[in-house]
Order: sequence, then C-alpha cells, then structure tokens
Amino acid sequence: MNRVTPDRPLSRIDGHAHAWTPRKARARFRWGVFGPTAGVAAGHTQANLISLPADWAYDMLLFCQRNPKPCPVLDVTDAGSWTTPLAEGADLRTDLPRYRVWENGELVAEPTDVVAYWRDDLVSFLIGCSFTFEWALSEAGVPMRHIEQGRNVSMYVTSRACRPAGRLHGPMVVSMRPVPPEHLAAAIRESTMLPAVHGSPVHCGDPSGLGIDDLGRPDFGDPVDAEPDDIPVFWACGVTPQAAVMASRPPFAITHAPGQMFLTDARDEQYRVA
Amino acid sequence: MNRVTPDRPLSRIDGHAHAWTPRKARARFRWGVFGPTAGVAAGHTQANLISLPADWAYDMLLFCQRNPKPCPVLDVTDAGSWTTPLAEGADLRTDLPRYRVWENGELVAEPTDVVAYWRDDLVSFLIGCSFTFEWALSEAGVPMRHIEQGRNVSMYVTSRACRPAGRLHGPMVVSMRPVPPEHLAAAIRESTMLPAVHGSPVHCGDPSGLGIDDLGRPDFGDPVDAEPDDIPVFWACGVTPQAAVMASRPPFAITHAPGQMFLTDARDEQYRVA
Repeated sequence: MNRVTPDRPLSRIDGHAHAWTPRKARARFRWGVFGPTAGVAAGHTQANLISLPADWAYDMLLFCQRNPKPCPVLDVTDAGSWTTPLAEGADLRTDLPRYRVWENGELVAEPTDVVAYWRDDLVSFLIGCSFTFEWALSEAGVPMRHIEQGRNVSMYVTSRACRPAGRLHGPMVVSMRPVPPEHLAAAIRESTMLPAVHGSPVHCGDPSGLGIDDLGRPDFGDPVDAEPDDIPVFWACGVTPQAAVMASRPPFAITHAPGQMFLTDARDEQYRVA
Repeated sequence: MNRVTPDRPLSRIDGHAHAWTPRKARARFRWGVFGPTAGVAAGHTQANLISLPADWAYDMLLFCQRNPKPCPVLDVTDAGSWTTPLAEGADLRTDLPRYRVWENGELVAEPTDVVAYWRDDLVSFLIGCSFTFEWALSEAGVPMRHIEQGRNVSMYVTSRACRPAGRLHGPMVVSMRPVPPEHLAAAIRESTMLPAVHGSPVHCGDPSGLGIDDLGRPDFGDPVDAEPDDIPVFWACGVTPQAAVMASRPPFAITHAPGQMFLTDARDEQYRVA
C-alpha cells in the first residue's frame, strides 16, 4: 500500500521544518512541496482528510462517532466546500502535501492537488492525528524514533474490526512507536490527556495481540528501528477511514496520503483536557 | 417550559433510589414510575434522548459534532430501532420516566411512554448528561445542593448560540450548580476528566455573562437555594438539542423530559479520560 519510492519526510528535506508556521507549510504544499509531515510546524494540530460524496457523509460521521479512538472528528465541511475554520485561508483541494484518490475502493491516483478531481457534492472530514501528541511526548522526554531516523511513522492494519455504520466497515489501523520502558508512563499519560487526537494507546507490547505479524513490514509508512529494550506502543490511527474506504468501496473518495497531513492553525493545547 | 405541577424527584420518592440498578430503574419507569433522575443508580451513566426522522439525522449528528460540550454523543441507533448497546434489554420507547413529543417545534404531549408516537424512521441520539459527573463531584466532597434539597437541577437557555449544522440551530442550554468556593477546584477538576459528559464548566460566577437574568427562574428544572458564598457554576447541558428543536422546528421529534433521563448500564468511570 506504499509508494514504490516513498516520499522523503519534510523534516529531512528542511532542518527547519519544525519552525514553519502552519500557513507557510500549507503555502509550500500548495506550490508542490510534498512528503510526510511528522515534525513539521511544532505544536500545531495535524489532521487526516477524508472527502466523500454527500450521500455517504452520514455513514462516515456515524462511523467516526462509533469509533472515536481511530476517528476523532475535528471538523466537517459543508458539501462542496474546501474551507475550514481550523485553518484560515486554506484550500483543502491544494494545501495537503499529497492526496489519494479512490474509486470503488481502488486507489486510482496520488496527486499533489485534487482540483481536477473535486466534486460539488464532497463532504470533507478532518480527523485528529497522532502527530499532534508527538510534541507533548517529546517535551515529556519520550524519544520519537521515526523522527530521529528521518522516517514516516509505521502504521499497521489490525485484526480488530471497527464498529460498522451503515455501509461503512473495516479494520482499525494503528500507528506504532517504540518507547523505552522508562518513558512508557509519560507516553501513556501525555497521550491520554489528548482524547481528541486518539488519546491513550490501544495496545502495548506483543504485536500479535493486534494480529500484526511483522513490525518490520508496516502496511503504511516506513519501518522504524527500535532499541533492544523498547516496547512497541500502538495508538489508533486516522488512516482507519482509508481502510474503511478500501473495505467498503464507496464510489468515490479523496484522502490524504498516509503521513502527509493537513496542517491546521489550531494549537495542540486546545485539545488537551487538562 | 416547565410543567405546572413538576414531577417529584425520584430520590425524594424513594430514599434508596441511589442504590437501584439501572435495569431496575428502567423496569420501574416502564411500569409507569416517573420523576427527575438526579441521584438515581449511583455511578451509572445517565443520558439525554432525542429522536428525529432519519432525514434530520445527519444534521443532528453534525450539530453534535460541532457543539461537543452541550451534545456529547454516547450512542446513535439505526433508524426505527429502540435498542442500544449501552443498556441490555432496554426499550427506548418505554424505559425513560417521562418524554416530550414535538411537532414543528411545538410541545404536543408529555407522556410516560411513546409507543403510540413511535415511527419507523426515527433515529435516536443518546447524549451525555451532567448527572453522570455529580457522583464524581460528590465523592470529591462537592455538595450537590439540588439533591440535598430534593429538587431537579436548574437549567437555563443562554445567549450563546450553538454552531449551526444544516437546518439545526439554537442557543446553548446550561445546568447550574451552586458550589462553595473551597470546592470549586475539585468541581472543575473532576468534571474536566469526563469530557464525554460535558466536561469542564463553560462559565463560573456572574450569570449575566451567559445572558441569564435571574437564577431563581430557571427555564427548565427547579430553582435551587444557594448558600451566601456559593459560586454559580455552569455546565453545558444535554437539553441543548431540545432547544434546537424548539428553534429549528423539525416536523417531528421525541425527547426526554428535562431531568428525567435514560439510565444506561455504562459506568461513569468508562467515560473518564484519567
């Protein structure tokens, strides 16, 4: 499910990407810059995108309500609109680094803008992303192995089914970060306080508990090297709606490319409960 | 908006109502027992009900997503269904103490069951209720004045507009509890940890900040006596969807009567983030 030649993470292309403003990041993506956004625009909330025809919007919104850990909804647009109050002046058709276009559950294109694919009946969902809590984890001293290694985070399709909603069904997707045992408590504590961006982990340790055979072969993103004592920690992932599109085959959908997120103007602190 | 002769709170009718199981409470309501449910079935999650025709369901779900503090969704049924995974064996048409039936935004009946009013196209929303966090506040030492006084909680329509969604719009409704200053921190802390049941207060102190003229004249529920030093603390309230029905006038709706909630089998702890 990955590109043959994966895009290079932006944090590797520009050592100052963490200091970009979200507006500057969106402008660059609009000009054609692309790549995974982990580590970009420190402290600003990143979001998953899924755009579906309006007659599928209720099923998707209900799917999100029934599966709040993988699908925490940050905003829903009106049909046809490409704007959101989460990012002033943004255009959802052009301001993500890379998109995926789906027909009947099949990936048909991975363009860097979707102006040519846009439809007036598309309702867009912006869904919380675990990149949001990475800053909180980093500040609490938890090393982010994938950022250190200049890679996209590892993501896996699990054996755990989401609760279906109407025509939508599919497996939960998770992101995994190797966490040193002495930092496990901080990783759990900090992410727990951010329930709007996946919240606490869904699983720690043996990946077979989620039906994952080989951590070295992620379904999305890059493999990430762990230190010998690291514990794999799994968070519900906003790529889950993409997996639902692949399983449920709506006639048309647009999503972000995994790891290449929408940068909002919101601050991560806004989503902390305490 | 209140009944001329308000129903007596159940905690006043039966001194052991706090020890009822949710199943027993639902069975009693099914037999015809009614009254406000504050203080009933300690530690079990209570829910607001709103049932709307299916063609209004997307607007309501989006309204809830856009107004998560007053409208935290706990469950949504399939069209026509009166069951929910939150309460085994429950019948949403009979198992609430008292209902309200609405036509074009006008209250037309307040029956103790809605079997005669049920329609196959109704989608029911169960929405978190502040009665859920009252137990957490009580255990932290915060006095619950309305329960001590055997009254329903005071609720007010505010001057704060909800973010509209499709055809639905309306003001935010709040519940108010007088809190002694020495308990204010605990009241805020404990409710903050329960974002799925309204979370932290939306306002403390001067009610004019919410456009409320007279705390002694609530729009729903009973007036509650405060001690001289008490600070009025306002939480977003699940009666907000009822106010949206009154303002937006869908052709048909069923809701719970204010304060007379649905008792689920869920435990309040399930909704704590930490």
